[in-house]
Amino acid sequence: MKEFNVALIGYNFMGKVHSYAMNNVSFFFDNTVKITKKVIVGRTEHLVKQAAETYGWEAYATDWRQVIERADIDIVIVATPTASHMEIAVTAVKAGKHVLCEKPLGLNADQAKEMLDAAKRAQVVHMLGHNYRRVPAVSLMRKLIEEGKLGDIYHFRGVYLQDWLTDPSFPVNWKLKKEVSGSGPHGDLNSHLIDLARFLIGEIDRVVGMKKTFIKKRPKVTTPQSLSSNLHASSDAERWDEVTVEDANHFLAEFKCGAMGTFESSRLASGRKNHEGIEINGSKGSMVFNFERMNELHYWSKDDAVDVQGFRTILVTEDVHPYIQHWWPPGHIIGYQNTFVNQFADFIQAIVTGEEASPNFYDGWQGNKVLDAVTRSVHTLTWENVE
Amino acid sequence: MKEFNVALIGYNFMGKVHSYAMNNVSFFFDNTVKITKKVIVGRTEHLVKQAAETYGWEAYATDWRQVIERADIDIVIVATPTASHMEIAVTAVKAGKHVLCEKPLGLNADQAKEMLDAAKRAQVVHMLGHNYRRVPAVSLMRKLIEEGKLGDIYHFRGVYLQDWLTDPSFPVNWKLKKEVSGSGPHGDLNSHLIDLARFLIGEIDRVVGMKKTFIKKRPKVTTPQSLSSNLHASSDAERWDEVTVEDANHFLAEFKCGAMGTFESSRLASGRKNHEGIEINGSKGSMVFNFERMNELHYWSKDDAVDVQGFRTILVTEDVHPYIQHWWPPGHIIGYQNTFVNQFADFIQAIVTGEEASPNFYDGWQGNKVLDAVTRSVHTLTWENVE
Amino acid sequence: MKEFNVALIGYNFMGKVHSYAMNNVSFFFDNTVKITKKVIVGRTEHLVKQAAETYGWEAYATDWRQVIERADIDIVIVATPTASHMEIAVTAVKAGKHVLCEKPLGLNADQAKEMLDAAKRAQVVHMLGHNYRRVPAVSLMRKLIEEGKLGDIYHFRGVYLQDWLTDPSFPVNWKLKKEVSGSGPHGDLNSHLIDLARFLIGEIDRVVGMKKTFIKKRPKVTTPQSLSSNLHASSDAERWDEVTVEDANHFLAEFKCGAMGTFESSRLASGRKNHEGIEINGSKGSMVFNFERMNELHYWSKDDAVDVQGFRTILVTEDVHPYIQHWWPPGHIIGYQNTFVNQFADFIQAIVTGEEASPNFYDGWQGNKVLDAVTRSVHTLTWENVE
Amino acid sequence: MKEFNVALIGYNFMGKVHSYAMNNVSFFFDNTVKITKKVIVGRTEHLVKQAAETYGWEAYATDWRQVIERADIDIVIVATPTASHMEIAVTAVKAGKHVLCEKPLGLNADQAKEMLDAAKRAQVVHMLGHNYRRVPAVSLMRKLIEEGKLGDIYHFRGVYLQDWLTDPSFPVNWKLKKEVSGSGPHGDLNSHLIDLARFLIGEIDRVVGMKKTFIKKRPKVTTPQSLSSNLHASSDAERWDEVTVEDANHFLAEFKCGAMGTFESSRLASGRKNHEGIEINGSKGSMVFNFERMNELHYWSKDDAVDVQGFRTILVTEDVHPYIQHWWPPGHIIGYQNTFVNQFADFIQAIVTGEEASPNFYDGWQGNKVLDAVTRSVHTLTWENVE
Repeated sequence: MKEFNVALIGYNFMGKVHSYAMNNVSFFFDNTVKITKKVIVGRTEHLVKQAAETYGWEAYATDWRQVIERADIDIVIVATPTASHMEIAVTAVKAGKHVLCEKPLGLNADQAKEMLDAAKRAQVVHMLGHNYRRVPAVSLMRKLIEEGKLGDIYHFRGVYLQDWLTDPSFPVNWKLKKEVSGSGPHGDLNSHLIDLARFLIGEIDRVVGMKKTFIKKRPKVTTPQSLSSNLHASSDAERWDEVTVEDANHFLAEFKCGAMGTFESSRLASGRKNHEGIEINGSKGSMVFNFERMNELHYWSKDDAVDVQGFRTILVTEDVHPYIQHWWPPGHIIGYQNTFVNQFADFIQAIVTGEEASPNFYDGWQGNKVLDAVTRSVHTLTWENVE
Repeated sequence: MKEFNVALIGYNFMGKVHSYAMNNVSFFFDNTVKITKKVIVGRTEHLVKQAAETYGWEAYATDWRQVIERADIDIVIVATPTASHMEIAVTAVKAGKHVLCEKPLGLNADQAKEMLDAAKRAQVVHMLGHNYRRVPAVSLMRKLIEEGKLGDIYHFRGVYLQDWLTDPSFPVNWKLKKEVSGSGPHGDLNSHLIDLARFLIGEIDRVVGMKKTFIKKRPKVTTPQSLSSNLHASSDAERWDEVTVEDANHFLAEFKCGAMGTFESSRLASGRKNHEGIEINGSKGSMVFNFERMNELHYWSKDDAVDVQGFRTILVTEDVHPYIQHWWPPGHIIGYQNTFVNQFADFIQAIVTGEEASPNFYDGWQGNKVLDAVTRSVHTLTWENVE
Repeated sequence: MKEFNVALIGYNFMGKVHSYAMNNVSFFFDNTVKITKKVIVGRTEHLVKQAAETYGWEAYATDWRQVIERADIDIVIVATPTASHMEIAVTAVKAGKHVLCEKPLGLNADQAKEMLDAAKRAQVVHMLGHNYRRVPAVSLMRKLIEEGKLGDIYHFRGVYLQDWLTDPSFPVNWKLKKEVSGSGPHGDLNSHLIDLARFLIGEIDRVVGMKKTFIKKRPKVTTPQSLSSNLHASSDAERWDEVTVEDANHFLAEFKCGAMGTFESSRLASGRKNHEGIEINGSKGSMVFNFERMNELHYWSKDDAVDVQGFRTILVTEDVHPYIQHWWPPGHIIGYQNTFVNQFADFIQAIVTGEEASPNFYDGWQGNKVLDAVTRSVHTLTWENVE
Repeated sequence: MKEFNVALIGYNFMGKVHSYAMNNVSFFFDNTVKITKKVIVGRTEHLVKQAAETYGWEAYATDWRQVIERADIDIVIVATPTASHMEIAVTAVKAGKHVLCEKPLGLNADQAKEMLDAAKRAQVVHMLGHNYRRVPAVSLMRKLIEEGKLGDIYHFRGVYLQDWLTDPSFPVNWKLKKEVSGSGPHGDLNSHLIDLARFLIGEIDRVVGMKKTFIKKRPKVTTPQSLSSNLHASSDAERWDEVTVEDANHFLAEFKCGAMGTFESSRLASGRKNHEGIEINGSKGSMVFNFERMNELHYWSKDDAVDVQGFRTILVTEDVHPYIQHWWPPGHIIGYQNTFVNQFADFIQAIVTGEEASPNFYDGWQGNKVLDAVTRSVHTLTWENVE
């Protein structure tokens, strides 16, 4: 029986889903592994206390440094806003912990490089939380592309569209403040697309992008206290807060393999909820994926007889498909949460075998480089190399 | 140059689309054929006169018997309500005319048999207007099934759903009167499904059905005069008319090949406009078609590698697909009207070559037999053989 | 803290997913409830032992009677083949246990009635495992129909299609033996459709059906020993086993509300994996659902302006949708397993509040009546009342 | 009876579909208009002769100048490669003919401006052949956007994908030679997207683009003579021809209204045949269209109740929808060719009423400006204003 004690830094959405993954990984993957949810960490005591109870953690804490120092912690999961990734992750790897860090890795490539270097020096397992690589349909795409099913790659087009900011009364939270999140959908959503692009067809050479903040002011987040004071607020400054990140960020790209790429991310795409869509066209075939139908992969093959060529809707729920032998019979589809179980299983597998995790901090560094190049291009108004 | 003079009996929806077909057949199929739209026939003079002008007929007439007697008419198209099909078609074939008759062929199998016998005796070309056989995707289904792509056939499921009767104020027209139309969606829509079933997988052995009229009374058709008199109508009988056909008719079937079948037709299926949907499951594959996306055929093949099996959406617009070489380049989809041009081209081809048309009055007779057996079963409440 | 100790009878597919549900219910629904997975029961010791380890049960056992007698068991889950449901469930309710039983409830309506009567006498909570009621999209259908969104119901059409028997070398397991399973897809799949039909639009009045076994002999299940003896088998009887249930079972139905229904179930529908599809048409709207895209509900409303009417694809992942507040943010879809967590949460809720569970053994009895009537009709070849 | 005599310059694909439109416009739209197909013009006599016969032209000619001089010609349709548009169209308008010119209008904005100026001076009706404006679903989009259904527009994304160049043995035709076509998919496909973008949400301010030729050499077009000489060809130059246009061209855009745009065109998108796809996101709703399902419009509205929001698939075949009253009953879908009939009907309508056609040469000029700005940006590697 292999046993691992985990500390989780962060307790919101990502905290919930990582807790879920830990609860279920041995059930589905390997019942010789025992994961103990030791301690969950957050700055606001009453909230992290409640999370600890709901999600079943042995303990909670408010000081992540103390937790990382504990000798009984094997694994640290960093699920905080981006601005604190580097400090926490570097401290954790220096303490010899294996680290699974949420994306994007750093606020920029320099931070990411520092994290990578620290992790390498510490010789721990480091992983980046791009859970979408663990969608069975996405893993299948990778496998088919590696088998040459698409031939030479000509086009990659990715869109990651959400609409939670279309309501102008949605208040400013940390995701809308640059000093905490680094950027808007660029770091939040484009980072996923970039990771999938790299995973599926390789590195990006150069980019040119644009971004825009359509709704520049939003209500301040209201706490019970602020709410009552807001009622009497006399100035705009007290009621309104500035949005300091973009609402949407698009870019063109050229890949090392020669392919042309387009990337779009937005939080203002009405009706699109978590629409992470990818299309890849190659000389021998094409593939289309959309997370909102994550159990399906659309695949067109030139190898089919001409009269029956067409995009196939592969229901990726067969035993032969990646990860599915751990789940349910054909046609019994899985959901978002399963990708985190798959991810955690792979993370544990890397720790047990000593192999590199994928994606890891190197991938995070490469991803940050692309994000940075796009951001530079928005200012220089010209193409920027990824370097 | 082959020349054919046509008389068209009927001038409503079917009159319009047959006229269209004649106008365009030589353009797309064979410019050595000249079709002359000699005379269009209807009972209401001012309406048929207007149709003649709009659709470009040389003349119009109100007496179909006189028209059929004319020596210069080669082809008669019967596009009248079902109750008059037999009389007109038998007269026409006896006069040596080639006949294209709308579906269902007769009010019942006896009528259809009489029509078939007359046509055979007259040695003319006889065709039945099941235009949906001429949808390229449907023709492709037939071809693939003949090639054995589906293996043994287990299931046929057909639905033909419309919703034009969901509005209870829709008035009683001829389609809602049994003495004129014979039946409701059974003859109108199930006849199409039955023809496609026979075309694709063969004869039906036995059936059991049910039917229902949900909305039993509807407003009388209002003419300008009736409208004003209706305002003063004192009795229900003057304002309301009885619906004497069913709103929906479903049945189970067993095919000669052993397959199980389900058939559904309704005019009360909200949101379904002309939803003629078919699914066939066989030991080696499946196919799905829906007229509202008539340019697409969905095909699943067991021959595909297991990890990439899936329903393909074949866009049936390639040169290698049936009829398409006459139309447009790939991806430039065709519409409802094209099926009538394809049909008329095949009809002319049969006349020119002397080969049998398909479907012909024999098919109409078989179709009427199935319709009759379902109707008997509705009354006997038990399975009825198709005989 | 409410605490419940559970015994699970059965350890295969259903055993796995019920175990999963128990593991996760407090995490997602109510962390004041503690579920203890006390003992899992099966006849084959080495297999149930392994299941106990994989799924995290405190103990395993091979004699369900002894387990049910234990005073520390509060809840019994019956996840065995249908033939043993009655005996186990009746014993369990008599022992005062709350029972969640897999579907169909009994081998026939008489058994189901006995189970219902026993459960009522025992005044325990009894629930039937029709997990598909707990698909958020299905719950939403129910809510919208109750609100009158569909108006008068005209049509219900349900298909439940799988293809795991298309391979003729698939061996005979318990699901293919009538003495164990009672029937083929009729009890297995139609039971689900019937439950959804009753849940959504009410009781069924009369039915007429058909069934068919296309592949009548299949290889015997091979155990390591049987495999070696099979190599030397000299007679067919030793290698082949008879399939004693149907491969497919379809029926027509009339509902108490007047609606017409069609039901189809098959295990020979190539390409269909767990395709549980439902369409309901009413005077004011229509709805379409398919389990393989279980996060989506298609809804057409006559209330929309005429120029923008159309089937909406509702992504049922919003906080306002049933169950979703317990799961993830919009667009982060859920899977098959979630329906069992929802179901178990509702079961526990019923136990805690003392309210009736839904569906319960009464629903199971009604469902068995419909199944029985269809089976009678297959033999009498005529319509049979559900009674 | 209004009568118009037409000369058509060009006889290939566009020649065929324009001929079709003229044949059918009075049938569907206005039987008081008589269109006479006077003369079809092409440089290769035996081919244009054959086209004249197939498409039913009174005469053919090889010298377009002589034809334009004829007093009996009212309308000239320019359906030649782009390089000759200006000369033919300017000559025609100077001769007082109404002109319908294929897209893109000129090789560049300067040419387009000259054409516009000449047409305005001549006071004739001038129209540009962007037939996709006449897809009923696209017209409906425009109407709904004008009604404010989408609110403020945030995003426009257009892709126009084909795959006829994925076969490397496809030979070099005029569309692959810059001196004849001006560009590849940029002028051919992006011009359509740009026109739709302008039609739907207004002018484009600035752009940055990229283009690529993946397959740089292709076989020479083989004529019977060249074929035999090719067999003995000793040099590459004799067998291979250089592709002088791009295979794909993408760009980012900012609209005057503030919206962000992405545009992609490719002839190397395997499996995409004529995939012209558009998505527009606004503050109150979104719309999605794809030509390969041209009878459908997907529309999401924030005005719907929250629990039933979803993308509606509007089947644009109702009488209330643009153009449909001229066509078929609900659910009887139309095809590519219908857009040309709609277009020609509008063109004739403009001539009869003296109103401006839409789109006209002004639109063509604006479109050419955008194309030019993208082309400049490909060379300058920076954003270029549309001016």
